[in-house]
Amino acid sequence: MPPIRLGLVGVGKIARDQHFPAIAATEGIELAAVASRSASLEEVPSFASQSEMLAGAEIDAVALCTPPQVRHELALEALKAGKHVILEKPPGATLSEMDDLVAAAKAEGVSLFATWHSRFSPAVEPATEWLSARRAKKVRIVWKEDVRRWHPGQDWIWEPGGLGVFDPGINALSIATAILPQPFFLTKAALTFPENRQAPIAADLAFTDATGVDFTAEFDWRQEGPQTWDITIETDDGGRLALSEGGKKLILNDQPTVDAPDAEYRGIYAHFVDLVGSQRSDVDVSPLRHVADAFMLGHRQITEPFFDDGGKA
Amino acid sequence: MPPIRLGLVGVGKIARDQHFPAIAATEGIELAAVASRSASLEEVPSFASQSEMLAGAEIDAVALCTPPQVRHELALEALKAGKHVILEKPPGATLSEMDDLVAAAKAEGVSLFATWHSRFSPAVEPATEWLSARRAKKVRIVWKEDVRRWHPGQDWIWEPGGLGVFDPGINALSIATAILPQPFFLTKAALTFPENRQAPIAADLAFTDATGVDFTAEFDWRQEGPQTWDITIETDDGGRLALSEGGKKLILNDQPTVDAPDAEYRGIYAHFVDLVGSQRSDVDVSPLRHVADAFMLGHRQITEPFFDDGGKA
Repeated sequence: MPPIRLGLVGVGKIARDQHFPAIAATEGIELAAVASRSASLEEVPSFASQSEMLAGAEIDAVALCTPPQVRHELALEALKAGKHVILEKPPGATLSEMDDLVAAAKAEGVSLFATWHSRFSPAVEPATEWLSARRAKKVRIVWKEDVRRWHPGQDWIWEPGGLGVFDPGINALSIATAILPQPFFLTKAALTFPENRQAPIAADLAFTDATGVDFTAEFDWRQEGPQTWDITIETDDGGRLALSEGGKKLILNDQPTVDAPDAEYRGIYAHFVDLVGSQRSDVDVSPLRHVADAFMLGHRQITEPFFDDGGKA
Repeated sequence: MPPIRLGLVGVGKIARDQHFPAIAATEGIELAAVASRSASLEEVPSFASQSEMLAGAEIDAVALCTPPQVRHELALEALKAGKHVILEKPPGATLSEMDDLVAAAKAEGVSLFATWHSRFSPAVEPATEWLSARRAKKVRIVWKEDVRRWHPGQDWIWEPGGLGVFDPGINALSIATAILPQPFFLTKAALTFPENRQAPIAADLAFTDATGVDFTAEFDWRQEGPQTWDITIETDDGGRLALSEGGKKLILNDQPTVDAPDAEYRGIYAHFVDLVGSQRSDVDVSPLRHVADAFMLGHRQITEPFFDDGGKA
């Protein structure tokens, strides 16, 4: 089978840092075009919009790396043009818009992949396996990073639909929904909004499930110095799981089990090649559903204003 | 078949105003017990909690009329005790908690009914029928009522999970999701919060769908004088639908088609008797999903404080 010819829309930080190297390193797929309002590449034909790319490039699939607020319109256009589609996370600005995309992919006979890159971190599969035979009694997620370091100048992330601290926090939720053997749900949430922003800079969440698991998650975007992306789980048989560095390291009952470099986006593209080859889609909105639940159920509190340059002028 | 013996939990305003008369008027079901922290009835055994009612009363089904924040725990307890369950709207405080309930109902072989009372208003079925052959071009929802009149002293409605103006607004969304032939989704929302409250007192919403429908909804809880619960729709063939008084009146192309008294809760109980008899469940979370989307995507703005007595002391 010839490689999937991919057109990528939205040549920003995530495309350059992650998508381009992963596409180049993955068999069965190749970058064939890009669309961007502001950037062009030398290596492949560059277009000013997805519409122009669909009209002018020979492609089989589209990867959408734009902000989530405009993802639905682009995804629907690409699907209706008969292209397979990869959605960066989160898959959209709302839960309800996903139904159309799933229906359009089915109608066109193409694959739709709503990605959660953290699910492709090396610790996730062994953690899932280990937990499948156990019951989680206590779950602690601590996901604290410095927004100025990871999202410099990205104003869209503070706008409605940009999700604020849930942009990284949803990565933790995408891991938790993958590795925990049964569904959980929010019981309480406190969301902290800078007084000049529409998205939270911190969130404290409490979840439970039908077995009464004691499950909390702390998300904070104000962490300077070392960054924390940890999930720890205690099970009813006394087992202990510690997943750290966002899923690169796994310790099971104090035994280091995984310590591997990041290859999340290569995992995404390998899975996409597999989905296209087997004519399947993969759309799981549960991480975004937990975020929507937190916005709906969350107690809002206001904190000092946030300025990207650290100043308060 | 003997009538379904129903235990009702949460003897508040909605139970007295709507549930008790509807149960009495519906064949195939009878009130057999109530559970309430504060109220008891003379006619049937009264218990201080659902647990005591489940232990002490001969019942086949439970109707939950408590605030949504505690609905999941009660619903799961009742389902696991092998009882059919009716959930007042909204069915829960989160979307994610519904999965457990659906699974529990299936495992126990009982019926679960997540009700949307406005779907049983007399205009809904003829409106659905009329729209099924047409495409909506323009949809306008105006849902404006006086919170002091309809929710006197109900503090839970202003707490996280109480939904604020979406408590009535979700009724409009439950009608729109029922009568419109294809799924729609939110593109923009402005939510107005009183500065002393955790729930919005007003919401301006814009939706669209795969065909590009022009769809707005205005919810406001500050409407004194005449109350407004209107949905108007223009279709691509020049047709006009006007649904008013929350679904009691329907005008199609300027012809009055329905003008009937409210019998929503009798419709709910008749449908529940049918669900139990045919061993089915009816759980559609799409109205609550739109509300969660609005909290997630909504632009928050702050307005003057709200006091239940109208004072500002």
